[in-house]
Amino acid sequence: MNSLANLEGLPRAYFTEADSADVVIGQNVNAKDARLKEVMDVLTRHLHAAIKEIEPTQAEWFEAIQFLTATGHKSDDWRQEFILLSDVLGVSMLVDAINSRRPVGASENTVLGPFHVGNAPEYPMGTNICLDAKGEDMVVRGRVLDVDGNPLSGVKIDVWQANDEGFYDVQQKGIQPDFNLRGVFRTVEDGRYWFKAVRPKHYSIPDDGPVGKLLYDLGRHPYRPAHLHYIISKDGYDEVTTHIFDPDDPYINNDSVFGVKESLIADFVKVDDPTRVAEAGFDGASYWDVEFDFVLAPKA
Amino acid sequence: MNSLANLEGLPRAYFTEADSADVVIGQNVNAKDARLKEVMDVLTRHLHAAIKEIEPTQAEWFEAIQFLTATGHKSDDWRQEFILLSDVLGVSMLVDAINSRRPVGASENTVLGPFHVGNAPEYPMGTNICLDAKGEDMVVRGRVLDVDGNPLSGVKIDVWQANDEGFYDVQQKGIQPDFNLRGVFRTVEDGRYWFKAVRPKHYSIPDDGPVGKLLYDLGRHPYRPAHLHYIISKDGYDEVTTHIFDPDDPYINNDSVFGVKESLIADFVKVDDPTRVAEAGFDGASYWDVEFDFVLAPKA
Repeated sequence: MNSLANLEGLPRAYFTEADSADVVIGQNVNAKDARLKEVMDVLTRHLHAAIKEIEPTQAEWFEAIQFLTATGHKSDDWRQEFILLSDVLGVSMLVDAINSRRPVGASENTVLGPFHVGNAPEYPMGTNICLDAKGEDMVVRGRVLDVDGNPLSGVKIDVWQANDEGFYDVQQKGIQPDFNLRGVFRTVEDGRYWFKAVRPKHYSIPDDGPVGKLLYDLGRHPYRPAHLHYIISKDGYDEVTTHIFDPDDPYINNDSVFGVKESLIADFVKVDDPTRVAEAGFDGASYWDVEFDFVLAPKA
Repeated sequence: MNSLANLEGLPRAYFTEADSADVVIGQNVNAKDARLKEVMDVLTRHLHAAIKEIEPTQAEWFEAIQFLTATGHKSDDWRQEFILLSDVLGVSMLVDAINSRRPVGASENTVLGPFHVGNAPEYPMGTNICLDAKGEDMVVRGRVLDVDGNPLSGVKIDVWQANDEGFYDVQQKGIQPDFNLRGVFRTVEDGRYWFKAVRPKHYSIPDDGPVGKLLYDLGRHPYRPAHLHYIISKDGYDEVTTHIFDPDDPYINNDSVFGVKESLIADFVKVDDPTRVAEAGFDGASYWDVEFDFVLAPKA
């Protein structure tokens, strides 16, 4: 017990308010990993700067401790409240943006989200991925191009979305059919893709935990505007994980997790010409037509 | 379900990497509490700045999520791993410093720590607070003064310390007597105080959790140099929560929680003159003499 630790190289670390961050960072000189040291040095410096700006009372500091503890306690194998916190503070989007910088004109990334599944069925072009006929009919179509405007064939389009009540199949097992509103397609020679689905609806992120309470206390709401998810990939090109968004959604301007980028807002055009509705193969009086092109950048 | 949230006043929040923090902060306009808004605005700005400086990979981001989750899961009614994290990052000391700024010359604060108990017995001056006769004898003495050097009588001195193996009584119930090495004294007319105890030993903060692992990965150790804790209070004066430290402790220069301030380092002088040892009332060959004056600032 209490055997002596190795103190070699450690500087004196007498605390002062003025030099607080330097005093702490000074003790990291023997870090086992240079990257860990860099990360902790930067975090420590910004954390101390934030605290000096905030000047929290002891009670406020303890509220923060309790918030973080509750956020940890809310997290388990099924719920990740710290990822939710990262999401609502825009951190997940920022990390995604940093890791997916692309040339101007290439399709932008947005967050993956927790509802992707790896083994969705691959369908022939034009298949309706809505398996329970619930919701407003929709055709989604467009082209996948390279940054010079050339069409790309054989591009894998992995698409998934919530249903017309804002739920993914994996959230409603036994209610929705398995793999409802999911599918994999591959673009044809001219880079085109098309499939059928139903217009998705906005939904709330889980708001019954400490992060939800924080959102409400900040006067924010927990909704994500309606969207379709995509992972678009082809050998030799930078894989795009993204959404396209419904511009008429009430929450399009304030996604609770900041997933909306201006370039990802699509058009949802109502088609009620009986000839076109019949041509599209729908029974109803109208459908939504969503045309959106994706642009892949070459792998860096 | 999915009833519309109040969107009044919310700006558009389309995410861009460059404006990430402003986009997030912009959504706080309807915060229920101005202070919460201020705190979250500052934290968000510094968090985004840190992430832009670090440029974490997705894997590093997920490591951070896992670390925070594990820190939450380690915390319960008996263990507070987030406070430990705050401690080892110097945050607890910084918050304490911000909340205890005093005129030059007044005794400085340091962290309270988790081992104070509220109902320690009050003793007549000179009492030995070591109840099990284990360890090296020590006399602690000095005066409490105001900032002009006038002695202050009737000052309450609440003292507690670890034993010669680095454990507090509350950590060794059934091994140490209850209230071992704790007591309350009140200064006499000339501001003097004196009591007997044993020389304390350095000890490790809890290092079997994620924070301990972080410390080791950073090449740091978990030890706190030997110290005595004090809360010193008198009506009309700013209460001082502090330690005094043993300058010969191996960890005096790198307290794992940064509690050491230069002004709090005492002298531990070995007395082996048999006359003085006998005068002090000890049976052994020597004792440690620790003289330390405290200075109280008037209440702000």
